[in-house]
This record gives sequence, structure tokens and C-alpha cells, in this order.
Amino acid sequence: MQIPTGKLIAIGGAEDKGTEVEKGELHKNNLNFFELGILRRIVEEAGGIKKRIEVITTASMIPFQVGENYLNAFGKIGCVNVDLMHIRNRADAVNKEYIERVKNCKTVMFSGGNQLRLSTIFGGTQLLQILLERYHKEESFVVAGTSAGAMAMSNTMIYEGNAARAHLKGEVKITTGLGFIDDVIIDSHFEKRGRFIRLAQAVATNPSCVGIGLGEDTGMLITDGNKMEAIGSGCVTIIDGQDIRFSNIADIPEGNPFSIDNLKVHICEKGNGYLVTEKQFLPEASEGAVTKKQVHVE
Amino acid sequence: MQIPTGKLIAIGGAEDKGTEVEKGELHKNNLNFFELGILRRIVEEAGGIKKRIEVITTASMIPFQVGENYLNAFGKIGCVNVDLMHIRNRADAVNKEYIERVKNCKTVMFSGGNQLRLSTIFGGTQLLQILLERYHKEESFVVAGTSAGAMAMSNTMIYEGNAARAHLKGEVKITTGLGFIDDVIIDSHFEKRGRFIRLAQAVATNPSCVGIGLGEDTGMLITDGNKMEAIGSGCVTIIDGQDIRFSNIADIPEGNPFSIDNLKVHICEKGNGYLVTEKQFLPEASEGAVTKKQVHVE
Repeated sequence: MQIPTGKLIAIGGAEDKGTEVEKGELHKNNLNFFELGILRRIVEEAGGIKKRIEVITTASMIPFQVGENYLNAFGKIGCVNVDLMHIRNRADAVNKEYIERVKNCKTVMFSGGNQLRLSTIFGGTQLLQILLERYHKEESFVVAGTSAGAMAMSNTMIYEGNAARAHLKGEVKITTGLGFIDDVIIDSHFEKRGRFIRLAQAVATNPSCVGIGLGEDTGMLITDGNKMEAIGSGCVTIIDGQDIRFSNIADIPEGNPFSIDNLKVHICEKGNGYLVTEKQFLPEASEGAVTKKQVHVE
Repeated sequence: MQIPTGKLIAIGGAEDKGTEVEKGELHKNNLNFFELGILRRIVEEAGGIKKRIEVITTASMIPFQVGENYLNAFGKIGCVNVDLMHIRNRADAVNKEYIERVKNCKTVMFSGGNQLRLSTIFGGTQLLQILLERYHKEESFVVAGTSAGAMAMSNTMIYEGNAARAHLKGEVKITTGLGFIDDVIIDSHFEKRGRFIRLAQAVATNPSCVGIGLGEDTGMLITDGNKMEAIGSGCVTIIDGQDIRFSNIADIPEGNPFSIDNLKVHICEKGNGYLVTEKQFLPEASEGAVTKKQVHVE
């Protein structure tokens, strides 16, 4: 299996801001919709403030305001080469100008909003294909996303699921994401919105996927398509279903509460790491340990 | 170690009702603050609708309304022998009438509210001592509690902890509860209020305690001081820290995010069970498996 050389940076969204802004009213402080520390890390991983960043506002229903906020935030840390791609539908997604631009940037950043807009608008497009190829082949090509933009990164994507009803089979709705990474399911706003049971249900339906629950102001930098490093001020909750001994979820009717015996859970803060393939928590992400690269390529 | 012969029934509270009512405004439908199915089970475990029930409203700041709701709810299922004990302070707790009454009932039910009121008012009192003795020695003596009343049952009790900041060391405040059961930490309103990280922090600080996260309209019936059976419509999340391989919580300063490698988590729905001492999930609570009784008494 090919090891991607690019980097993914999935961010959980912001406390009391971020996607709430979708509901109509623009939050006054939305400029700081996530901490500048995380933005700085994105810029650093892509090679510095001069490298081209394209912000894709497709997930949002208020793309102009959201886009403006990204320009301001990147501007604050000195980025001078940032632009917005207001792709609103599949017709926009085949626009030649946009295709050229995704060929020439060093970073794409998917904004928050509705992740189902990302999968429905980009699924099967040449634009997505270019991003996937660049991510797989180019060192220091960065695909970043916040909230919906983070959730859409994985091949398995939650697009709906009320946290308070997430203990009921079928309440958590899943479809195919943009496919930058397999074997994980990424959830966002994890602490504030109480999404543990929701992500556990997604993991229970196929334990080949590890659940990655991103807190607010918190993210995971993913390299080699496998090695994760927690960044930001909060925590990341990892749910590993590999050792589930019992679950009734296949056998109960839709709408009934499900049960699971033996999930493994890890809580990562800044600097901790996790290896997806090896299902291994790393106290220090910087300590190499075994990576997919070393395992598969010798 | 003595095996208690009584029963504990810890209930997680109600969806959008229950302790929210503490904030001042009485919820219109507060009557149904938890499902009658759970109340029926309490009554059944205590020996039927004629047995004496004392509702202790101490945790609540609106004891008269809350008490009225309990009378109505128990009345709905045919209980005719229910009364309220509005113990407001430690002076009330030594009132001879109340002491007589806790000697003569078959069930006590602690209402929701603030669990710190329960520990501060009942801690070290004769009244609590009588309840503990009866619980330990009398078969079918039932101690029930909802929300704060459930959280106060364990020896280790969370009394405060904002869910959104629960990833920070020291945000989760713990003290000694009423001590009906050791080796567990009970949390309530678990799903709706997103308390996974909060309970995980409590478990991380001493993994000898198993975290019991009770969802809304959901409870655990505990027999032999060890065997749990999930009841109600939601789910119970169990957090077992016994196999934690790494945690930084002892070493970081207060206010910093903590990390944990390898929590074991189980999600129980109605009918599932859990053995605290053996740290064992039971797909069918009714299937005896090993109990503390069998282990310790032969």
C-alpha cells in the first residue's frame, strides 16, 4: 500500500463558535474561531508564510463571512498568499480556474459547515482527485480542515447524529467522506457537544475504523497516513473497537439502545501521539515508534 | 468483607428536566422527570406498592415542588404509602421523627439537586448510619437516588466539573459521598451533558474506582454491592481504568490538559450487567456469572 507523503491536519472546531455560526448569526469573535497556534502549525508544516493557501468554504452556508475570517486569521500570523475558493456546487467544482489553483497551492483548508456538502459536491470530481494525488505524492502538501472540514477527511464520515439520542441504533448517520485517510472516523466538537456515544456507535458498526474525537481548539496532525500528533489546547479522544468482545448492534431493531463490551479509549493532549495501524498510543508523538512506513516498506 | 443484602438504584436523571429544574423555573412536565418504568422497578424491588417509601428532598433547592412530583409519580403507579422528608440542614437531620421514619420505611429515594448538599448535611449523622446499616443487613431494603441522589451514593463523589473544561487537571472536583458503595464513581446526565472526559479524569486520578456514567432516563440496579443491571431507556457508560498504561495527570500542573492511554469502556443498555469487583461486562445481567458473594463467601 502506498504511504502518503503529504500531511493532514484535522481540527475539532472552536468553543461556542465555529459551526454554530452556521445557524445564521455571525459570532462577533468568530475571527478567533480557532487558536492561532494551530494555524501557525499548519503554515509551518506547509513550509512557511509565503506558501500558497487556498481556503475552500464549500461546507459553509455563509462562505463570505467565514472566508473573510480565515483571511484575517492567516493574515494575523503574516500569511500573504491566501485566497478563497467559494465553490458552492458541483458545477463550480469543475471550473478550470479552481482546478488550476488546487494544482498550484501548498495547502488547502476546508472550512466548517456541513460535511455532507463536501462529500456531495466534491465526491468523484477531478478537483478532489488532484488533491488526493498531491496528498499522496508531494511532501509537505497539507490538507487541513476544521469541524465539517475535518470530519470529511476520512473515508468513513459521520454526517448526522443527535448526541442525546446517539445510544439508539441508526441515529448516527454515516456515508463516504473525501477519503484522505482510511480506517478512522473523525468527529469534531467532541467535548462540548458530548459526542462520545455517537462516535462509539460509529465504531461499533465496524471496528476496523478507529474513532478520533477532536475537542474544540484541538487537532491532529497526521503524517504517513498513520501517525497522529495532537495539537492545540484541548484533548482528542480515541476510540478503538478492535477488542470488542460483545456488541448487540447488528441484532437489535433500529431505534433500540445498543451495547458494547470492551472499547479501548485513549485521551491525547498536545504532544501525545497515536499510530492508527498499530493502534498504539504514544506519550510523545515525536518518539518515532513503529510507523506504517516502517511496517509496510522495507 | 461484608456483602450488603440491600439494593441500590442509581438513576441518571431526566432529559431536559430533572436537575435543570433547580435553576428556578419549574418544568411543566416535570412530573415525568423520569420514566415510570424505573419507578416501577424500584417499587418491585422493595416488595410492592404497599411498602413504605420516604423521599428525601435534601439535595434540591425547590424541595416542595420536587417532592410533590415524586408523590404524583409514585401515586400514578399505585403507591399509597409514600411520604416526603424535607431535611434542609444538619439540625433537621437529627430530628427524632425523621430517624424513626428511616427506621421504618422499605425504600428511601434521594431526589436530584446538588450532591454536595447531601454529603454536607448527612455526612457523619446517625440518620445516614441507620440507612447504611439497613442497606447492609436487610434484604430488599432499597436506597434509590436520581441525579445528585445517584452521584452521592458512592464513596467517591464528583460534586463539580464543567464538561467543556473537564480535560483540564483539577476542573473535576471530588469529595466523599454517602458511602453506600465503594470502588465506583457515579456520574449522571451523562450523554446529554457530555460528561465522558469529566468521568475519565475522575477515574484517572484513582483507577481503583470504576466510572459509572448514567444517561438520562437510565439507571443501574446494584445488588450484593457489586452486581449492576442497567434499567431504563438509555445507556450506561462504564469506564474502567485498571489497565491504564500511561497517564500524565500526577505530573502536570493544575489547569493543564491531561492524557490517558488505555481506558476500557463498556456501553450497557437495559438488561446488560456489570460486575464491579471482577470488572466484567455481562451481556445478560440475569446470567449470574461470578458475583462478589461467590468470590468472597464460600
